[in-house]
Amino acid sequence: MAETNNTKNIGLRGVKVADTRISDVDGTHGILIYRGYPIEELAEHSTYEETAFLLLHDAMPTVTELREFSESLRSARPLPDFVIAILRALPRGTSPMDVLQAAVPLLAADDPDLADDSREANHRKAVRLIARMASVVSAWHRIRSGQALLPPDNDLSHAGNFLWQLTGKKPDRETAKDLDTALILHADHSFNASTFACRAVVSTRAHMYAAVAAGVGALSGSLHGGANAAVMIMLEALKNEKDIPAWVRQQLDGGKKIMGMGHAVYKTTDPRANFLKDMGKRIGEQLGQEQWHRLSTEIEETAIAEFLKRGKTTIKPNVDFYSAPVYHMMGIPHDLMTPIFAIARIAGWTAHIIEEKFGDAQGKPALYRPSSDYVGNYCGKIRCSYESVEKRK
Amino acid sequence: MAETNNTKNIGLRGVKVADTRISDVDGTHGILIYRGYPIEELAEHSTYEETAFLLLHDAMPTVTELREFSESLRSARPLPDFVIAILRALPRGTSPMDVLQAAVPLLAADDPDLADDSREANHRKAVRLIARMASVVSAWHRIRSGQALLPPDNDLSHAGNFLWQLTGKKPDRETAKDLDTALILHADHSFNASTFACRAVVSTRAHMYAAVAAGVGALSGSLHGGANAAVMIMLEALKNEKDIPAWVRQQLDGGKKIMGMGHAVYKTTDPRANFLKDMGKRIGEQLGQEQWHRLSTEIEETAIAEFLKRGKTTIKPNVDFYSAPVYHMMGIPHDLMTPIFAIARIAGWTAHIIEEKFGDAQGKPALYRPSSDYVGNYCGKIRCSYESVEKRK
Repeated sequence: MAETNNTKNIGLRGVKVADTRISDVDGTHGILIYRGYPIEELAEHSTYEETAFLLLHDAMPTVTELREFSESLRSARPLPDFVIAILRALPRGTSPMDVLQAAVPLLAADDPDLADDSREANHRKAVRLIARMASVVSAWHRIRSGQALLPPDNDLSHAGNFLWQLTGKKPDRETAKDLDTALILHADHSFNASTFACRAVVSTRAHMYAAVAAGVGALSGSLHGGANAAVMIMLEALKNEKDIPAWVRQQLDGGKKIMGMGHAVYKTTDPRANFLKDMGKRIGEQLGQEQWHRLSTEIEETAIAEFLKRGKTTIKPNVDFYSAPVYHMMGIPHDLMTPIFAIARIAGWTAHIIEEKFGDAQGKPALYRPSSDYVGNYCGKIRCSYESVEKRK
Repeated sequence: MAETNNTKNIGLRGVKVADTRISDVDGTHGILIYRGYPIEELAEHSTYEETAFLLLHDAMPTVTELREFSESLRSARPLPDFVIAILRALPRGTSPMDVLQAAVPLLAADDPDLADDSREANHRKAVRLIARMASVVSAWHRIRSGQALLPPDNDLSHAGNFLWQLTGKKPDRETAKDLDTALILHADHSFNASTFACRAVVSTRAHMYAAVAAGVGALSGSLHGGANAAVMIMLEALKNEKDIPAWVRQQLDGGKKIMGMGHAVYKTTDPRANFLKDMGKRIGEQLGQEQWHRLSTEIEETAIAEFLKRGKTTIKPNVDFYSAPVYHMMGIPHDLMTPIFAIARIAGWTAHIIEEKFGDAQGKPALYRPSSDYVGNYCGKIRCSYESVEKRK
């Protein structure tokens, strides 16, 4: 047990909480690996299903394992009737992230393994959650738009089926693959804020659903998953802006952020951003929507130059900066961009929850219970003394 | 930014995450203060409403402030119709903690201040949450038992009204005051696991409801709030046990825990346990149910002696050890004991969320983003290299 004395660990930055076998971020060199595999290789060659298996099982699946895993995901796609009834009972304006956070503990009520905390049962829960987070997001969007729900299509991949159940159009092979790649890129990121929240919750021996709901909550914040929607809102606001450099300078002079630039860990370009930048360029050319790539690139280049002038050499585009226009060109509404992040990250969350529960990386698990320094009131002596409310004034 | 090098901070024990002005636990001397006031003084003289105000506002209310605060709690008691409809749509067997975790983000959809992140709006959200967590728990229990919902009684205190809406009987003054005292004792406890989860979530700039849902998830674990129900299950199992000392020895020899004994922070008796022990003795005598006090005391004394023989001098009863029989004698079912902990702790959670959001104790807030050491696969070299699934074997 490390005593850090009176050092305060604001935001826990640099505090090593645990060993992990799941993923590693080298923020200095811009390298991200899942279970030993560089993200670039997975994005190029793997599928989301295979990557989820890798994250959960610490090994690439065999042909049979991958077939079985994909089949178990497909069979878990349909939502229980009571969850659909509940979605229909919600005010139409409810934020999709609030809906998703509420849906996760509701799905617990349908899990036949809920009371079983064995490793095998937790793997089955993970599969159900991976399948159903996507189902909740598409179902909620159909319901809030007054559209009929669609049955899953078992011939489509996880990513392709999500697009089908969301939009009612069977996606072409390339679009489905692009979303699949985006899901791979977002599937894990070591001890990011939402994964850390999942691990903190599960350290109390809560069940997997209770922990995942915490992850959804953390992801909703604008300093975390909420950033992709904020980037798109920024791009929309700037699409007719003639003088981007002037806008960037004005932001920085006013002490404001450029949404999607800078990262708690990366001190160079986020490797996921590079991938999504190229993808966005290609999609833009195909759809005749080159403006987003042009705009993003101009903001990026100007901002990096302006940050440099201000002595800030480490603020570079992060994953949200280039994912936002990709999702936008796929027809995804702004407020579903963060839920799509959740649909991807659930693979990492569940892998981390299992690692935490079973102490897979460092032996015996322990309750996350940090400490704090009390700097509050003492009423002029060691303790305050109670007086009845009538005597106070 | 503190670098702790390669020291791993398992469970973050002893790691100081932040300054706080809200509460302080002196685990060595068994002292707990809220905003400067010792817990004993508050338990004896204050009310839950007043204590909640104190936690949220860092000062005792005046007569007028207390009247207005209590009135605002009363007016927030009724649940929105859609939340009641959703509770009715749930499978009857759904765990009350899962229901509560799901209900919190649903209540967000009814909050007129949801998009307003000002301090004043957050205080209004806190009041609504304090009032409505109790309403959700009582409503769910009525619905799952097939009983009609009851309207709140504005002549009753927060604790008294909860008992009324739960049981359909107007509680006598003493029972209402006993629950009120138990709620005061559970209202805050510095950086415990659930409060820490709330703060981690809100550090992403998520809204208060998203953070509270994480707190509910963390509280559900058996190493945290779930322990009170586990204590009662232990007491029920032991009520006909003739040889408690032999049972205790057998547990310890088998490397098992005694539920409700030991604490991450207290190295002596938890001051809240002392209070609840006396309360349980008195209630038992009044109701002719002295057996629980006798049984608990015998387990406590034997266990302390046995722990001592094994060189463990710091394992003493915690708050859950003596709260469980108190709730049981009030007629609370086992699986509502942890939800009652949540009904109390919501005051502390919301106070910590506001402190974290506005940096009240230490200035600028920061995203909680710790780090980890990667100890996983490298495939025998720096990185693994992808091969297609057909080539694997």
